[in-house]
This record gives sequence, structure tokens and C-alpha cells, in this order.
Amino acid sequence: MPKKIDLMVESCRRLLRKGAKGHLENLLSKLHPADIAAVLGRLNRQERDAIFAMLPPETAAKALVDMDSLLQTKLMEDMPTKELAEVLSHLPADEAVGLVDNLPEEKKEEILPLIEGREGVSRLMLYEEETAGRIMTTDYLALPEELTVEEAIERVRESKEKEVFYIYVVDSRNHLVGVLSLRQLILADPNTKLKEVMNPEVISVRADMDQEEVARIVARYDILAVPVVDEGNHLIGMVTVDDVINIIQDEATEDIYKMVGASEEELWEASTLKIAGYRLPWLAFTIVGEMLSGLVLKHYHNTIATMVSVSFFVPLIMALSGAVGNQTQTIIVRAMATGRMEGMAWKILRRQLSVGALMGLAAGTLACVMVMVVQHNHLLGISVGVSLLISMSISAVIGVVVPTMAKKMGVDPALTVPSIATLNDIMGTLIYLSLATYLLTTLPQ
Amino acid sequence: MPKKIDLMVESCRRLLRKGAKGHLENLLSKLHPADIAAVLGRLNRQERDAIFAMLPPETAAKALVDMDSLLQTKLMEDMPTKELAEVLSHLPADEAVGLVDNLPEEKKEEILPLIEGREGVSRLMLYEEETAGRIMTTDYLALPEELTVEEAIERVRESKEKEVFYIYVVDSRNHLVGVLSLRQLILADPNTKLKEVMNPEVISVRADMDQEEVARIVARYDILAVPVVDEGNHLIGMVTVDDVINIIQDEATEDIYKMVGASEEELWEASTLKIAGYRLPWLAFTIVGEMLSGLVLKHYHNTIATMVSVSFFVPLIMALSGAVGNQTQTIIVRAMATGRMEGMAWKILRRQLSVGALMGLAAGTLACVMVMVVQHNHLLGISVGVSLLISMSISAVIGVVVPTMAKKMGVDPALTVPSIATLNDIMGTLIYLSLATYLLTTLPQ
Repeated sequence: MPKKIDLMVESCRRLLRKGAKGHLENLLSKLHPADIAAVLGRLNRQERDAIFAMLPPETAAKALVDMDSLLQTKLMEDMPTKELAEVLSHLPADEAVGLVDNLPEEKKEEILPLIEGREGVSRLMLYEEETAGRIMTTDYLALPEELTVEEAIERVRESKEKEVFYIYVVDSRNHLVGVLSLRQLILADPNTKLKEVMNPEVISVRADMDQEEVARIVARYDILAVPVVDEGNHLIGMVTVDDVINIIQDEATEDIYKMVGASEEELWEASTLKIAGYRLPWLAFTIVGEMLSGLVLKHYHNTIATMVSVSFFVPLIMALSGAVGNQTQTIIVRAMATGRMEGMAWKILRRQLSVGALMGLAAGTLACVMVMVVQHNHLLGISVGVSLLISMSISAVIGVVVPTMAKKMGVDPALTVPSIATLNDIMGTLIYLSLATYLLTTLPQ
Repeated sequence: MPKKIDLMVESCRRLLRKGAKGHLENLLSKLHPADIAAVLGRLNRQERDAIFAMLPPETAAKALVDMDSLLQTKLMEDMPTKELAEVLSHLPADEAVGLVDNLPEEKKEEILPLIEGREGVSRLMLYEEETAGRIMTTDYLALPEELTVEEAIERVRESKEKEVFYIYVVDSRNHLVGVLSLRQLILADPNTKLKEVMNPEVISVRADMDQEEVARIVARYDILAVPVVDEGNHLIGMVTVDDVINIIQDEATEDIYKMVGASEEELWEASTLKIAGYRLPWLAFTIVGEMLSGLVLKHYHNTIATMVSVSFFVPLIMALSGAVGNQTQTIIVRAMATGRMEGMAWKILRRQLSVGALMGLAAGTLACVMVMVVQHNHLLGISVGVSLLISMSISAVIGVVVPTMAKKMGVDPALTVPSIATLNDIMGTLIYLSLATYLLTTLPQ
């Protein structure tokens, strides 16, 4: 519905220009918070702040949750700490903590004391960021197993939770023992006990489980929410499918950013200088690495001086071995992120290696022929062709081995992608120039 | 729960070796279909086929749906068409069509006539692949607006739909007029009519809407399912959140593959030769492109012959301008895919351009100093530094402009990423060598 949003943006702008505050408030009160969030995203800072200030705190809070994280952070940073705390107080603890977790450290430290008093918040803060315990909602419905279905339906009617997906069943010591859906509850005989109608095979996650793993479980079992338990299997929360969608979306974006040497922080950052700063370590690494490629060329400067045409094919070697390495590595990293490597590692590794070698053979042959045709030099053609075969095969091996080892060592595999590109360049140049030197200048002509 | 899966894989293998069919069937009957799917993914082809053949058709069907798409296709291809049709008959129309859509063309044409007789299937086939109409389920609950709440609850009890998220309310001509959740239904006064308690602001999608857009709407409004309507606003289906999760996951993976010049088809392909074949067009393009980079070097061969050290910094120029272009383009393509560009295009463009220029300035300065120190040649240092500044800035511009134009022209922006890398190489080499030639050989020394 992008068209609908366009219209709303226009109306808001017009009313804002006219100073028609009453009409504007009336219009905003009719919009879905997610639409308000989308509208705010299209306005400039001045318009945005004016309209956001106009929203009742409850609507502002909901719109904030539905917003792009970049915009979220900007609006929260612009807001006085007290007003922000007021807005956050209208949100369930998990959503308030989620918003605060996205803030820069200083602002976070300012706001935390103001919301930590709330019961739910302090409990969530016990867990690490990006774990089930940190993102769970405590807004779930748990009922004792001894309740009858009729009593349970009465409890659902009385419960203040916004939306009930599942009813979790607990024993007298709050151990999670079963689950049933609202529809199953309606279908059941009103006089039976919950423990007789519930499904005892309940899928749950531990509070310290990484959020990506939680998302995978919700996706795998096609469930709308997963209960969160502590070490003793006591029910302490629930992660819902809308959080899971955000996790899947955000984790993919973060991985993509990391794979090109950009930082995920960049997403929430508006300052050009800071963004460039985030990319600086990788930039410096590339400069040093490519200086090493330069040293390789320098080492073989006699070859280049004797036959300038050797230098013409350095870009080809670099581009092709770099690209195969990048492909292989990217595919492996993504397979890891989506859980596709689990138990498939060897199959995927073997496949990527054969593809790399086969492409090296194809590209090597093609390039060899082209060089022979263009330069009329068979030995140069063979140097280029054989170097491509070797360096593309090695790139594929590196592209498989490095992220696999990184994961084993607890390093994020996505981070290895940009640095390996540089190493591939050094390796490709070295293989090509040493081979060309041997074939073209050392061998008796 | 990867550990749990490991244990199951071991048990299945052991029982299979012992030929303990009864025990194995007993074990499998206790597993969740999603777990069976995960176990099958870890077995070799022989074990997998043996166990899959052992499953009752209904379980086989469910496991198939929960499986990785690569494995899905393999198992279906190995199965005789008639048996496959039998298995598919145990699935709702939308899931059967989804599975068939993943098959290679020949197998698809074989199986389609066998399932097209089913009412739901022929209706889904009216719509294009990857649209709301093709992926929707017809397994939803729609009730007339004139019904009372009490009658509606009775209908929910009688309905055969597996799970009810929302109750859609329609008028006498099947127009979608409202929605309410099961919990809202339970809370309402039994004697009121649905049209009085329903929420008339129902979010719906048109049957011809692209599935990515559908996923964005479900994610934006945090809903569990979205009703699908035809041009006349008649209710014809529903897309559920579990489908949305798969779409988001798969679209991200496809984009990542395309961005490195690999094909999404590769995901479902086991043959090394075919995978290499998918990557061939991009490979050929790179070879031709880098031959052009070679021609640039050849054009300036006098410069290189006069001063071999000019060639040492070609890798640096290529790597840095290529990397900035790749970063910029990747970030823009991802922003488009996640809907972040909507209305933000200019902000994002400006930001990427300034970041590119700033990085060019930083890298150019640093490289200039390093070249001066290493080569003791100020003019060479200036050539490298200034070329980096210019080529990195241009790369950023290209990285922003090309995917934006591609999208306007209806070309998938992700596909432009690998080709632009090659163009950046040619451009970088050209800028550097022409500048170096001018400064080092043309200028009076």
C-alpha cells in the first residue's frame, strides 16, 4: 500500500503548512500506528518532530515500535529523556527494552534508570542482548494444569493480555508441562481438566538461547510463539512470531552489510564521518594488503620491464580469483546463517570446491585462448590460463575453509568475507607472476 | 535443538542398519514432521530414500513441507510420479502447489495433470508464481456479517480448518467487510451480530500482489495472516505468517546469491556442471571486462615500460574502487529489498555519496603518503592518491545510480552488483593510468 502512504504524507504536509492542528490530530487518530510510522519516515526532521510531538504518548509508543530502526533511534535521540521515559511507559517491558537496546550507549545509560523500576524491565535486563530472555514478552497466558476447560475459558475472558496465541499449561511449581491453542480450548469438553486436553509435547527455548536460534525454531515448527523457560524449566516468557520476523530480516541485513565490510552500526547512524569511521579498519586492511600485492609486482619488476604485456592480465587474475572466493565464501556464510550447513557441511564444501575448480578450468581455457589471439604469445597465454585454474581453485578452498574455521573459533563468519578478498588478490598476483617469470624469462626461449 | 536432532539421526541410522523396521516406524511415528525433515537432511541418499518410503503418506507430506527446498526437490524427483501425487493429495492445495512450483519443468508438467483436478489447485494456478493468489491458503474461516456471536462460536467449533487465527466477516455477496480474532469473539456478547463487533478496518492484499510486498505488509502490521481479495474485494484466500517467514528468508538468500553472481537456481541444484553453468554468463562478462582493463594497460604500455613502478599500484586502485562500489551497491540493493528506500531514496543516496567521497579522501591521502615513502616518488604518490579519490567517488555514484535505474526499468537490482564490479575496474585503471601518464611522462620533469 505505498500509494496510500503517499496520500497520507501529502495530507499531513498540507495540514502542517496550514497550521491546522485540530484537523491533523483528527487525521492521525484514524491512522494505524504502523502507517504513522511509515509517514514519519517520509517527512523531514522538522515536520517529523512536529507531528511526533502531537501524538498521544500511547500512539507515539506504538508508532515507535513499528518504525524502521534508523528512524526509531533518531526520534528517541531528539526527545528529552523524561518524555521518552513517559512514551516507553506505555509499552510492554520487552518492547521498551528492545527500543532502549538500540540507543547509543550514553542515551541508554540516561534512560535505563528511569524505566528499570518497572517489574518486567529488570527481569529482561538479567539476560544478554540478543537472547530469548532479553526479547521475550512476559505478556503470556499460563494456566494451572488442574483447571477445567470451562474455568480456563473464563480466565481467557478476564485476562488483560492483548492477544492470546496459545495457552501454556504449568504445574503447581510453574514448570511448563503443556500447551493448547485457543481453538482447541473452545472445542474441548468444558468439564475436562487442562492436563487431559493439553498437548504435552511443547516446544520451548531456554532464556539464554541466541535469538537467531529462537527464530530458526519458530520458523521450523511453524508456530506463532514459543515459550521461554529457565534452567529449571520454569515458564518465564514467550517470544512471538512478529519478533521472529524482525530478527530474520535484521540478521540477513546485518550479514549482508558485514560481508561487504560495512558495519551494521551504519544502519542506525546518520553521520557521514562516523559511517566512514566504521568502514575504516577494513579500508586500512585493504590498503596494506594491496600494497603487498604491489610488493609482489615489485619483486617481479624485471619480468614486467622485460615484457610489459605481462602486466596487462593482472586485473583479470585478480578479478576472477577474487570473485570465485567471494561467491564461495558468501554462499557458505549464508548457508550457515540459515542453518543449511547443519549436517550438510561436507556436501556443501565438496560442491563448492568442484564448482571453483570447474570454473577455473573454464575461465583458464577461455582466457588462455584470448591471450594467445590478442598477444600472439603462447607462453603468456599458458601463464594466464594455468594461473587462473590454480588461483580460482585455491580461492574456492579458502572461501570454504576460512568461514568454517571462523565459526569454530567463535568469530562471526560474515566478518571474514571482505578481508579474504584482499588475501586472494595477493595470492593470485603471486601465482601469476611467478609462473609468468618462470615460463617467459627463466625457461630457455 | 541441534543436539536432539543429532541423537535422532544416530538412532535412525542404527535401526536402519539392524533392519529393525518395526522399531524405526515406531520411533518415526513419535517425531514432529519438522524433526523428521531435519533428520532426512542429515542422511545419505540411500538412507534417506529408505526412511522416506517408510513414512505414512500423510507424515511424508508434512515432512516434505517442513524441509529445506533443496532436499524437497531431490526427494520429489526421486519419487515415482504416482506416489508423489498420492503424497501431495494429503496436503492443502496451497502447500501442494508450492512444492510443485519448486520442481524442474519436466517433472512439474508430469505431476500437474494428476493434481489439477483438485478444486483448490486449479484456482491457485490461475495466478502467477510468487503472487498472493498463488501462495494463499483457501483454508480460512469466513462468516456472514449477520451471524450472531453465539452462532459464530458454533461455526468455529464445527469448522474443519486446522487452526483459526482470525475470523473474516463477509457480506451476502462475499465481499470482505471486517475481521475479528478468536479471542475477541469469545469476549463479545453472545447475542450481538458479527457486524457490530468486528473491526471494519481490515488490512487485505490483492491476489496479484507480489509475495515480497505481501510479506512486507504482514511484517509491518504485525498480523498473523492477511486475507486475499480479488479485484472486486471478494474474499478468496489468506496468506499466513509461516509462509511470510519463508518468503523473507528465501528472498534474502536469493538476493545474496545474485549479488555475488551466483544463481538462486543453484540452491536446488546438485550437479556441479550445472552450477558452474549458471555462473557462466557472469564469468564470461568478467573475462571480457577485465580484458578491457588489460587493453587500458596496453594503451599506456609506454608509461609502464618507462616506469615499471606505475604498475605496482594497479591492484590497490582496483581493489579499493571496486570495494566502495560493491559496498554502496549492496547497501542500496538491500535497502530496496527491505522497503527502506521508500521515501528515503534521496537521504540514502546523499549519505552513500558523501561516505564514498570521504573514504576516497582518507584512502587517497594514506596511499599517497605510503607510495611516497616506499617509492620516493612524489608524482607517483599524487597519481595514486588523486586517482583513488576520483575513482572511489565515482564508484559510489555508480553504486547508487545503477541499482536505482535498474529498479525503475524493471530489472532486478541485485543482478547489477557483479557486473558493476568489472566496470569499476576498467574505470579505476583508466583514471589512474591516464593521470600517471600525464604527471609522470607528459609533464616536463
